[in-house]
Amino acid sequence: MREIHVIGIGAGDPDQLTLQAVRALRDTDVFFVLDKGEVKSDLVRLRRDILDAHLPEGGYRVVEARDPERDRAAGGRGYSPAVDQWRSARADIYERLITGELGEDETGAFLVWGDPALYDSTLGILEEVLARGAVEFSYDVVPGISSVSALVARHRTGLNRVARPVQITTGRRLAEGFPEGVDDVVVMLDAQQAFRQYADQDIDIYWGAYIGTPDEILASGPIAEAGPRIERLRAEARERKGWIMDTYLLRRRPQG
Amino acid sequence: MREIHVIGIGAGDPDQLTLQAVRALRDTDVFFVLDKGEVKSDLVRLRRDILDAHLPEGGYRVVEARDPERDRAAGGRGYSPAVDQWRSARADIYERLITGELGEDETGAFLVWGDPALYDSTLGILEEVLARGAVEFSYDVVPGISSVSALVARHRTGLNRVARPVQITTGRRLAEGFPEGVDDVVVMLDAQQAFRQYADQDIDIYWGAYIGTPDEILASGPIAEAGPRIERLRAEARERKGWIMDTYLLRRRPQG
Repeated sequence: MREIHVIGIGAGDPDQLTLQAVRALRDTDVFFVLDKGEVKSDLVRLRRDILDAHLPEGGYRVVEARDPERDRAAGGRGYSPAVDQWRSARADIYERLITGELGEDETGAFLVWGDPALYDSTLGILEEVLARGAVEFSYDVVPGISSVSALVARHRTGLNRVARPVQITTGRRLAEGFPEGVDDVVVMLDAQQAFRQYADQDIDIYWGAYIGTPDEILASGPIAEAGPRIERLRAEARERKGWIMDTYLLRRRPQG
Repeated sequence: MREIHVIGIGAGDPDQLTLQAVRALRDTDVFFVLDKGEVKSDLVRLRRDILDAHLPEGGYRVVEARDPERDRAAGGRGYSPAVDQWRSARADIYERLITGELGEDETGAFLVWGDPALYDSTLGILEEVLARGAVEFSYDVVPGISSVSALVARHRTGLNRVARPVQITTGRRLAEGFPEGVDDVVVMLDAQQAFRQYADQDIDIYWGAYIGTPDEILASGPIAEAGPRIERLRAEARERKGWIMDTYLLRRRPQG
């Protein structure tokens, strides 16, 4: 029976792999690396570096495939038709990789940045492949350090305040309004810098990009003050590297 | 200058330590272990096992202290006066430990279950000790696999659904009402099993206790069906071990 590990490899610092993740790497025959295109090739290289570091003796295969770009322009709140199409296209690829590249008694692995539980589609796609019934396999999940955990660790702060909730959401959602009932909000996948529209409120931002890598940038402060600085840093870094991955925590200050 | 590592050691599986955490352990002269009393002595032993596994050659000191129990009866939504008192009592202990047990050029460490960012008070207490000004030190934070990540990995599901938010909150808050604007809610610190009051709704629960340890128990399903089973498993385990640590995800099913 084919086996698959979905391995969270942390936010970018190779030392953020867990011992469990290292063990799973060593147990793997075939690594599936899905490339989103040239702009993300740094990330492919970083994954390669992780394999080199932990499997110096080799003995594994790497199979690369092109990850279809999602049509982000096709809008809507949950933009479901575009997401469904994209997921289906990815499931085609995953099914082909598993069927064609993984022997019946072999173990494959998908390496996922951060934690496979947070804004990652690998588990959903594997479930879709299984549901189609064309190929059988079992799989397990190795949790990883998410960029969210890595971000607040670098800022030496917590995600929640004592006995209070925290919400993790997307830039698109934040642009529609500050979430109800929470004063601590982590924002991922924000290409529009939605934090800007809250600059007139008593909210602190803790921002980070390329967290855990040599390119890491951190900035924090009240949005009104730190926001413009973050916009500048973000634009410069994006220009320099061709891509950016960033995350931030918004923390509303207690009212008088 | 004294240095302190606040090290997330994962949810209970010693293999969930990151390489960065292992490195920090090896860099430490003095480990501060705060015991909440007999009922949690399993956890103290588990921490000792982690040290034995990664520092077989010894060469470190372990300093134990009793963590004051928080007066949970003193109620209120954020129960702030009780929390303030408790935090202040803990800060007294931490200050005494750091001043009295850590040499001026030594490195100390606090080992935190899960991730120091999530429902843990260590960072806040260290900040309070620094603010008092009686002792100087620098500190850093090593992120860990939270029980939240470990829970959903074991259930092989994500925390959020595509492009949707997830909220992490407490049992006390959940008892006051289902959070606004989210359909995925992770609940921690729930001694009252607040999920029971949502048994009449189309909500699935993904529950786990002692996650990552040999005692791990998992259960999932619609609350109406899985809820009573979880109550029974929880009561039995609590009776058997004398303490329980559990977490769960509630996921509202899409409306027809």
